[in-house]
Amino acid sequence: MAPKINGLGIMPEDTRICVVMVGLPARGKSYIAQRAQRYLKWLSVPAATFNVGNYRRENAPHPSADFFDTNNAEGERQRRAAANAAVADMLKWFKSGGVVAILDATNSTKERRKWVLERISSEGIEVIFVESKCDDEELVMANIRDVKATSPDYVGQDPEKAALDFRERIRNYEKVYKSINDDKDEDHLTYLKIMNVGKKVFINRIQDYLQSRVVYFLMNLHIRPRSVWLSRHGESMFNLDGRIGGDATLSHRGEEYALKLPELVRESVGSDRPLTVWTSTLKRTIATARHLPKHYNQLQWKALDELDAGVCDGMTYQEIADQYPEDFQARDEDKYNYRYRGGESYRDVVIRLEPIIMELERSEDILIISHQAVIRCIYAYFMQKTQEDSPWVPVPLHTLMKLTPRAYGTELQSYRANIKAVSTWRGKGSTAKHEDPAPEGGI
Amino acid sequence: MAPKINGLGIMPEDTRICVVMVGLPARGKSYIAQRAQRYLKWLSVPAATFNVGNYRRENAPHPSADFFDTNNAEGERQRRAAANAAVADMLKWFKSGGVVAILDATNSTKERRKWVLERISSEGIEVIFVESKCDDEELVMANIRDVKATSPDYVGQDPEKAALDFRERIRNYEKVYKSINDDKDEDHLTYLKIMNVGKKVFINRIQDYLQSRVVYFLMNLHIRPRSVWLSRHGESMFNLDGRIGGDATLSHRGEEYALKLPELVRESVGSDRPLTVWTSTLKRTIATARHLPKHYNQLQWKALDELDAGVCDGMTYQEIADQYPEDFQARDEDKYNYRYRGGESYRDVVIRLEPIIMELERSEDILIISHQAVIRCIYAYFMQKTQEDSPWVPVPLHTLMKLTPRAYGTELQSYRANIKAVSTWRGKGSTAKHEDPAPEGGI
Repeated sequence: MAPKINGLGIMPEDTRICVVMVGLPARGKSYIAQRAQRYLKWLSVPAATFNVGNYRRENAPHPSADFFDTNNAEGERQRRAAANAAVADMLKWFKSGGVVAILDATNSTKERRKWVLERISSEGIEVIFVESKCDDEELVMANIRDVKATSPDYVGQDPEKAALDFRERIRNYEKVYKSINDDKDEDHLTYLKIMNVGKKVFINRIQDYLQSRVVYFLMNLHIRPRSVWLSRHGESMFNLDGRIGGDATLSHRGEEYALKLPELVRESVGSDRPLTVWTSTLKRTIATARHLPKHYNQLQWKALDELDAGVCDGMTYQEIADQYPEDFQARDEDKYNYRYRGGESYRDVVIRLEPIIMELERSEDILIISHQAVIRCIYAYFMQKTQEDSPWVPVPLHTLMKLTPRAYGTELQSYRANIKAVSTWRGKGSTAKHEDPAPEGGI
Repeated sequence: MAPKINGLGIMPEDTRICVVMVGLPARGKSYIAQRAQRYLKWLSVPAATFNVGNYRRENAPHPSADFFDTNNAEGERQRRAAANAAVADMLKWFKSGGVVAILDATNSTKERRKWVLERISSEGIEVIFVESKCDDEELVMANIRDVKATSPDYVGQDPEKAALDFRERIRNYEKVYKSINDDKDEDHLTYLKIMNVGKKVFINRIQDYLQSRVVYFLMNLHIRPRSVWLSRHGESMFNLDGRIGGDATLSHRGEEYALKLPELVRESVGSDRPLTVWTSTLKRTIATARHLPKHYNQLQWKALDELDAGVCDGMTYQEIADQYPEDFQARDEDKYNYRYRGGESYRDVVIRLEPIIMELERSEDILIISHQAVIRCIYAYFMQKTQEDSPWVPVPLHTLMKLTPRAYGTELQSYRANIKAVSTWRGKGSTAKHEDPAPEGGI
């Protein structure tokens, strides 16, 4: 077989996985599906979610709770047709190169799971069931209020009425719901059962690497509110010269930013709670972090070092264009995949950042002080930027970003220090030392 | 707090964990303990195992099965005294800087676990129980035959008699054995239950990063027989010149090695079963792998690229000694921690190899074609070399190594291709281009 560059570690050509969600409504299934998809896509694993509810809504856009009553034959027929349509589309998607599909539906009976398993595995696709189970009534109600109030099923309806109807709908599901393997006759299934948002996890028959990565990722997800702060180091002496890479110290203005950073952080946190600070191992990020409060934990990660420019380390863009004109152009054409001679590509950086992302998913409040390309990759993860766009995202110096993950998407707030700095953004084809980003390119 | 370089990702200064093994005899507890300890130490996490059996043997070196009968008061007293002594030593070890201790004993009753938990957590140490449960009688018997025949308890005794006595001992344990949380009253414990060698895994209340890494590692362990093959690339043009790093092609003799490699592999595998081949992304390893059978899966990992020599990339040792004399000496003094300017240290390489090791633990037969420093780090993992020794291990060119993990330790076989190559080993202080390793330094 032809050698292939690995993204997520091992991925034999023929591994295809369908993650089948299981659980009552309002158990965070869509949240889990969305997170898993984002993580996989960021790692270049073709991933997609097939939400059975969306298919069902084509025929029944605003059903009331009794649509979901198992005695309602017409409701039952329509819901089965929706599942059929979703699975059919999913199988088509696999044929066009898909690797991990997520089937987002309740799949709450043994019969339904049997049907899904047979239908999908007969196409040579591995099936892994992921059940989210929650008996913490408060958590469930919080989920109903936060998420379901905005559900397309209840558009334009009174939220209080919607919540009541939705609770009724859940009761209809509860009548037939069977947790995986509770009767011990689903022992042959590959599954992950997550109870009360990860307090307990049960894993059965996980087989290969990709399955194990997906499972490990899902185990680490939590839904406690938190934010991630991102900042580049203060302006460095190399920035002033328009040189890339290196291990320079801060410029005078960079030092000013380091002094100002504690205030920016305090303002953005809005309370006294301490953050944990991660820097790279390079002087300019460590110096930028050094005035933060002493009781903040600080940690240096080699994985947060700047993209390695190999032979071009320490050069200006003009020097690179002069000395390696073909490379310079090749990089502009496919910046995500271009690997500097003896150095790295954005793709390489993403792979080495994977443990950082895994750890961020586990953690609560983290402030990362790192470098342009690294921040772009982390930003791309949270903001779901494509591989095409992420290497061009402007990440200005002397600006603190606060990312707050929400049920759907991530919220961004920016805090500018009002300390001047050179621009290190570079447009396609440009060799300018300090070019300002195109206005539409702004974060 | 002072910033610290992270080994295993996050490790706040104050995390200390005691992994308490649980399970009947012959369930692979010592195997798990030994693997976890090796993995942690390789990642610079201070780890140690405290085997209660060793303490018990000081007073009762060759007890018969009735020593383990719960009605045997004297046996019971001695076994408790041994547990006490082991825990006391462990707590002393934590005070001297230990981070992860493994308490290797059966801990098969709720009372014992309660005692262990109280004793250890009162010292501010996190307790995680790891139970290995196995109801596959064949697996248990295989374990009894393989491991217990060589147990110090039965030295000099007839193996058949020893096995019978040992089965009797297990029966005595079975009388009082309670699996964790079977009565639902141990729900507050942090634990990992591994059933039938990883077929099922149950995880309860895992809290922080270090716990989650240990758990993920243990989940991935398997005991199916397998080997790992290691080879450097064939001799490269840079090797001929005595230059380090770079991305050179193979020399004429390096090409010969690539042609010969399939034969060496066949000989060492001893059958037709295919291997999976992992190379780095550099030309010399890819070229070395290119004549291997077409049905072998091949995969390129950036994480397998050679240690990055930063500014010294492409130089000879003489040039480095001339241009960076202080660095050259600093490296000799602490080769494991010395980081090339703009490049990496051995410690950095170990951190980036961690996913490779994790994947190797999951996998069966893998052939790795990589580079001197990288092979040294992988070798150090399997052969338990210290950080002081591992950067000096001679890894000659044109030699295939086969590592076969056994219950205790790893077996090494070397296959030489009989194709001449320069030596790339360098002794402390030497700037020789091609020096032969000191005889006692041989692998």
